[in-house]
Amino acid sequence: MYYGKDDIRVEEVEEPQTRPGTVKIRPAFNGICGSDLHLYHDGPMAPAPSAEQPHPLSGETLPVVMGHEFSGVVEEVGEGVEGIAVGDSVVVEPLMVDGTCPACRAGKYNLCEQMGFIGISGRGGGLSEHIVVEERWVHPVGDLPLDQAALIEPLAVALHAVKHAGVEAGQTAVVGGAGPIGLLVAAVLKAKGATVIVSEMSTARREKAAETGVADVVVDPANEDLAEVVRERTGGAGADVAFDAAGVAVVVDQLLSVLGAGGRLEVVAIHVKPVELNITAQLTMQDRVLGASIGYANDHAEAIELARSGKVDLAPFITGRILVDDIVEQGFTRLIEHKEHEVKILVSMQ
Amino acid sequence: MYYGKDDIRVEEVEEPQTRPGTVKIRPAFNGICGSDLHLYHDGPMAPAPSAEQPHPLSGETLPVVMGHEFSGVVEEVGEGVEGIAVGDSVVVEPLMVDGTCPACRAGKYNLCEQMGFIGISGRGGGLSEHIVVEERWVHPVGDLPLDQAALIEPLAVALHAVKHAGVEAGQTAVVGGAGPIGLLVAAVLKAKGATVIVSEMSTARREKAAETGVADVVVDPANEDLAEVVRERTGGAGADVAFDAAGVAVVVDQLLSVLGAGGRLEVVAIHVKPVELNITAQLTMQDRVLGASIGYANDHAEAIELARSGKVDLAPFITGRILVDDIVEQGFTRLIEHKEHEVKILVSMQ
Repeated sequence: MYYGKDDIRVEEVEEPQTRPGTVKIRPAFNGICGSDLHLYHDGPMAPAPSAEQPHPLSGETLPVVMGHEFSGVVEEVGEGVEGIAVGDSVVVEPLMVDGTCPACRAGKYNLCEQMGFIGISGRGGGLSEHIVVEERWVHPVGDLPLDQAALIEPLAVALHAVKHAGVEAGQTAVVGGAGPIGLLVAAVLKAKGATVIVSEMSTARREKAAETGVADVVVDPANEDLAEVVRERTGGAGADVAFDAAGVAVVVDQLLSVLGAGGRLEVVAIHVKPVELNITAQLTMQDRVLGASIGYANDHAEAIELARSGKVDLAPFITGRILVDDIVEQGFTRLIEHKEHEVKILVSMQ
Repeated sequence: MYYGKDDIRVEEVEEPQTRPGTVKIRPAFNGICGSDLHLYHDGPMAPAPSAEQPHPLSGETLPVVMGHEFSGVVEEVGEGVEGIAVGDSVVVEPLMVDGTCPACRAGKYNLCEQMGFIGISGRGGGLSEHIVVEERWVHPVGDLPLDQAALIEPLAVALHAVKHAGVEAGQTAVVGGAGPIGLLVAAVLKAKGATVIVSEMSTARREKAAETGVADVVVDPANEDLAEVVRERTGGAGADVAFDAAGVAVVVDQLLSVLGAGGRLEVVAIHVKPVELNITAQLTMQDRVLGASIGYANDHAEAIELARSGKVDLAPFITGRILVDDIVEQGFTRLIEHKEHEVKILVSMQ
């Protein structure tokens, strides 16, 4: 249970009951996400409720059950649910949306005006023995191992960004930053037939990008000339697309500078500071595009298929497995202190 | 002849000779463009050569013949030229490109590394009695009147921007700024079946946007709430696309704020100053895209068809006709001092 800054507790809660149109799941594995760390270290902020102010969709205040990147096994199926059976391995698209705002009506429910997350905003979470979820958010994963399935959620984020950028097979893509999302973006790009150049300052992360095979080339931008590497790999043309998975202004500038004619930079990181953009020099004079995306909408089925088919191998991104009682010390702390060596740490209840 | 800052002269020059693969044209009308004003008032800058430094493609130094938005009649056709006959009304796509750089090889010749303009960088210009142009840049306009044909060049700029933004029929578009390019962007948007909201501070320009029928709605952003107007027109959804035809940071911010989920802002103006962009708040959280484009490539045929078919009526954008001897006083000066009342002033040799 997330109570607030530096305050997570393991408690007994009432077992949720299956209702018509819902599915009861026994969670298997939860990935720890950057937003979990953020909530723990910095305290509650939207889409989490506070102790006083409930989330508008869940109606719940703190505490809430944590865990939004999770897999599990179906325990019970509510009345009217079709295509999901007891015993199925599933993942949960951990969303709550109002369904009536313009974005929802347009099918872009990741942009819902009131957006909430299961595992952050209420309605239970993956870090529990049972959770009941509306049928719509439950996706069977077939024979995909449950540990890998816990990575479907961040894979869907990466896939959404790659689709938003309109990447095509045969293109050359540069990924700036090889943290969990950068690595998964690179993996999706490879699966889609792009040539992938990963630029990353950390030696450990460069090694991960190289050994997992998601990068065709890895570059240390502090000691190598990224622009020169890109020119060489593209016969002087520059990259078709680049992904900012770092969230810092210098990376935005650097990635824009390695794009070829008509290239696109896609931001898939949170920028906490504004960036200064010379629109004419950095975009206009080369018909360039700066896109940015958040979350996922209608992406889970394809993300699952990428993993099931082996086009994306999620196994090497699992760098640790811990029990829920150790989530702070072996989870949150390790992800910060050893962040260059960890990708995803999975947490389970037992 | 453009000699430099504040220095334009009418002179006799040698008549250019038709060569194989070229077409000799008698120019009819020249539109005066913002870049002509800029060269006259601020002095030579790329893509114009200087008096000492020749343009890399033309090999010419100052002086050069001016005039890059022009129409004319074919006088002579060189050996091997097909599909163009003496007497044809034509426009010239006023470019010189190296043809071998990566952008040119990819067909994006507007992004050529060495890019030059007929009428700015050398190889003659429309403000002359004869000009010889390579066949590739000569586009017959059929029965389109020659005065309207002089506006095909800026129409191609507007069309290129609208195509770059991927606008579709039925979408709602906001155009910020109703100068010549903003009006032509609005005209193309209307022709493509979009609902067009024009936001413009100047009363005269708003009137032009309304009376030409290119705007469904005109808004004075200083005295009306643009966001509220857009919400009303879109049932709360926000605009699908917006065009910055103003080139100032406040317009970028304003247009981004009226976009709906997944909306796109397309910049079709020159920004002389950098803008500060909050990528996460202004783009990421709504899957938004910021695009920008320059010039045109393979757009002239469609621009001509838009004008010939009547889908875009260019006539109301012609606000003056002068002779070359009056270009400074009745052209450049009027376009600056009465800029809110003028759209295109056409210049002819006689």
